[in-house]
Amino acid sequence: MGSLPVDTLRPLDPDTFAADSAAIVDFLAGYYRDVDKYPVRAADLEPGRLRKLLPEAAPEWGEPMERILDDVRRDVLPGLTHWQSPSFFAYFPMNASAAGFAGEMLSVGLNVVPFVWVASPAAAELEGVVVDWMASLVGLPERFLFSGGGGGVLQGSTCEAVVCTLAAARDRALGRIGHEGIMKLVVYASDQTHATFQKGARLVGIPPANFRVIRTTAASGYALAAGAVSAAVEDDVAHGLVPLYLCATMGTTGLGAVDPVRELGEVARRHGMWLHVDAAYAGSAAICPEYQGYLDGAELADSVSMNPHKWFLTNMDCCCLWVASPAALNAALSTDPEYLKNVVVAGAGGKPQAAAIDYKDWQISLSRRFRAMKLWFVLRRYGAGGMRAYIRRHVAMAEWFERAVNADERFEVVAPRRFSLVCFRLRQPPRPSSEQSDDDDVNRELLAAVNASGQAFMTHFVVDGKFVIRLAVGGAMTEMRHVRDVWELVQRTAEQLLQRQ
Amino acid sequence: MGSLPVDTLRPLDPDTFAADSAAIVDFLAGYYRDVDKYPVRAADLEPGRLRKLLPEAAPEWGEPMERILDDVRRDVLPGLTHWQSPSFFAYFPMNASAAGFAGEMLSVGLNVVPFVWVASPAAAELEGVVVDWMASLVGLPERFLFSGGGGGVLQGSTCEAVVCTLAAARDRALGRIGHEGIMKLVVYASDQTHATFQKGARLVGIPPANFRVIRTTAASGYALAAGAVSAAVEDDVAHGLVPLYLCATMGTTGLGAVDPVRELGEVARRHGMWLHVDAAYAGSAAICPEYQGYLDGAELADSVSMNPHKWFLTNMDCCCLWVASPAALNAALSTDPEYLKNVVVAGAGGKPQAAAIDYKDWQISLSRRFRAMKLWFVLRRYGAGGMRAYIRRHVAMAEWFERAVNADERFEVVAPRRFSLVCFRLRQPPRPSSEQSDDDDVNRELLAAVNASGQAFMTHFVVDGKFVIRLAVGGAMTEMRHVRDVWELVQRTAEQLLQRQ
Repeated sequence: MGSLPVDTLRPLDPDTFAADSAAIVDFLAGYYRDVDKYPVRAADLEPGRLRKLLPEAAPEWGEPMERILDDVRRDVLPGLTHWQSPSFFAYFPMNASAAGFAGEMLSVGLNVVPFVWVASPAAAELEGVVVDWMASLVGLPERFLFSGGGGGVLQGSTCEAVVCTLAAARDRALGRIGHEGIMKLVVYASDQTHATFQKGARLVGIPPANFRVIRTTAASGYALAAGAVSAAVEDDVAHGLVPLYLCATMGTTGLGAVDPVRELGEVARRHGMWLHVDAAYAGSAAICPEYQGYLDGAELADSVSMNPHKWFLTNMDCCCLWVASPAALNAALSTDPEYLKNVVVAGAGGKPQAAAIDYKDWQISLSRRFRAMKLWFVLRRYGAGGMRAYIRRHVAMAEWFERAVNADERFEVVAPRRFSLVCFRLRQPPRPSSEQSDDDDVNRELLAAVNASGQAFMTHFVVDGKFVIRLAVGGAMTEMRHVRDVWELVQRTAEQLLQRQ
Repeated sequence: MGSLPVDTLRPLDPDTFAADSAAIVDFLAGYYRDVDKYPVRAADLEPGRLRKLLPEAAPEWGEPMERILDDVRRDVLPGLTHWQSPSFFAYFPMNASAAGFAGEMLSVGLNVVPFVWVASPAAAELEGVVVDWMASLVGLPERFLFSGGGGGVLQGSTCEAVVCTLAAARDRALGRIGHEGIMKLVVYASDQTHATFQKGARLVGIPPANFRVIRTTAASGYALAAGAVSAAVEDDVAHGLVPLYLCATMGTTGLGAVDPVRELGEVARRHGMWLHVDAAYAGSAAICPEYQGYLDGAELADSVSMNPHKWFLTNMDCCCLWVASPAALNAALSTDPEYLKNVVVAGAGGKPQAAAIDYKDWQISLSRRFRAMKLWFVLRRYGAGGMRAYIRRHVAMAEWFERAVNADERFEVVAPRRFSLVCFRLRQPPRPSSEQSDDDDVNRELLAAVNASGQAFMTHFVVDGKFVIRLAVGGAMTEMRHVRDVWELVQRTAEQLLQRQ
């Protein structure tokens, strides 16, 4: 593990590899052992701090592993927000696990690039198998499996999946009405839909003015109402516009709301729109039968996505995208340059193999990682039963927290809890006339103070003008005691703030 | 490492983590030791083979690590194409290394998600530092460094970088001429430019008819001639179209050609086009002063990209994208949903920190991995000097191969070798009149037979109607003897084919 002399640089020497890797495994095992001792959110929040600590240029000569790891400990760790801390309740969880890590290591070490089938046949095929397994686990209709004429792909993020499906929907529509029709295409989402849909629509060239954000209300638990979509669509059609794409979300980012997939699917069908179901976070819960009802009507969808990297113990990144029509997706995304054509059989003139998936035509990028290995390891190592128990454990913790909030009259739960996300706030007597009420400031201060303590990290949302604190349970190391602790911390901090007023 | 009972599933238990990870390190060290014993390209090329071997559904209960690794050995490895084999000369290399692996493991294990600065400040800052280091190493002008008003980001692939820069260029243009102007925007590339530019242009909504593929010729070494671009642009302008984006490549995929950046930059400037320099493969060579001349004129570019995951010992995936105007990029890619706003200082009302980069606004996706750790490890562990020696070693091997081809009158080198890619073919006496000459078939057969032997893997290209074999040197374990071996194999195989005729 010492310095490596240039003239003998052997980057994959097995002994150096094993020694360097063992040092990292030790480092990480120690990190997991102590992660609850770090402030959850980075303690040092002075922008530019790390840049000041590091040299202006790369070193001219190689350095020993120990020195680099010392720098990680001293300079980098204090500036990290610790997503694997058991007291990380912010955003949505991003799960690491021993199995996810093992699968990822194997994939990173093999470093194969399955963009076309022949570039690593088993990698492409394992991907096809694993996405089918996942589709069955979450109860998707047969049409999203390869055996049912559909199929899936592992991408890096929902954002990619959104861009790909938007492009597929767009090209299907433009094939009918001509490319200049792009000015008429309209995309529909709710005010709770993830921002990536708006960004994705802009990316694929939909005029920003043609993105409809439909309001949701507390009455429906902030779900997108099919009637409201219908009305918007009919209005657009009356103005000569062309409804293109509708997004239904199972578990919105802000509040965990669930849109009615079947009703929205019927609207989409009626108007020839592409329906995408975004189950990025809560899709993981659908491996439990008690949550599969939320995907009822998925047979009306054109595509569905969920992120095993959120709540399914699969280290970043891994997003399952399933489509009912691979042909529609491929039509928007395929390329066939000469340097990627398969020349497999001598004398066969380079004819491509049938039934061999070229996954480059299922995504934005040509290059791709062997993500299937990671998800396969998670499924094999923990099993469907293990994963169900894991999901249910988190939901039970969130239920406990929800009950605790409800039992404390100073607080309120703001939106119905469906999964492991609890949205709550300090309740304050309404003040007449004042537009910007003070309770927002109290909740803001409460969150800031909790996070500044370093003992937990949560994030917020704003709904109906109200500042809401989000507690997203789902850490791989989170236990009941961590949820109890954060509740006590919230109560204690609130008490101090309220007394001060 | 045995089966894990459900009720005690502890996915990040440090001891299980360490034991499982150690098993993978052992597995991979053994793999590197033996990788030259596998057929380079997958031996088993029957589509659907792996699917038949695997069960139809995920297991219900978790399984021991050993059993999964046994299945990897028995079912997966024989179906992989071994990109890390020293005799892999196909496509472009995808380098793994002990340092790249170590950095990636650390990143995967920490599993932080630096989409906004506060979500892991040190991760965002390390990224800024490392892309600056790389920009300096490859000799980019100051305007692409943060200190010069520009800046860089680590993405997953050139394809992503292309989509992002196309969107930025498009939105800058549409801001001037209105969104309906999208029908008038024109993108220019050569017939050697990577297919991802055409796909990217389609993705961001440029009408497919507005993608100009400009012919190159042997006379210029298949470089894009500025005069030809000028002529095409002037013709388009005369027809009321709007020149948008021009791509110059340093090291094209098919032949390794280099476009004249300065001359193309001047055309781009004259017509208000965005100039992107794609140095995906050969950018790594630009860390050696003798290759920096190829980037002369880069100060006229709006963006530059290169892939450390190709020839820079950085395991998949890692693409540096530098832009002269972060504001232009961010304008096309930023979102500001409530749930991502920073609430940092108690009572400060959630004002964002200045100078804190939110990298979500520099790429397609919100979620992102901590790729900086990987590239930083490579630079620290091997040093700039070590990397230069590494690059030069590969170039020297390619030079040797080129000389060997030139010395054998049965063969010819088809395009000038600039870096570590040699494009060659069996030369055959021209046959009058026949359109599809037989020498193509002989070269096709030659490549198919070499690849079928399992002793090496190369891919092909077609230029001026000629089938060309590509030898891309660049494996982390490739030594001179492997290059000598593949040349002997090519000669031997050619002899057999020619005798048979």
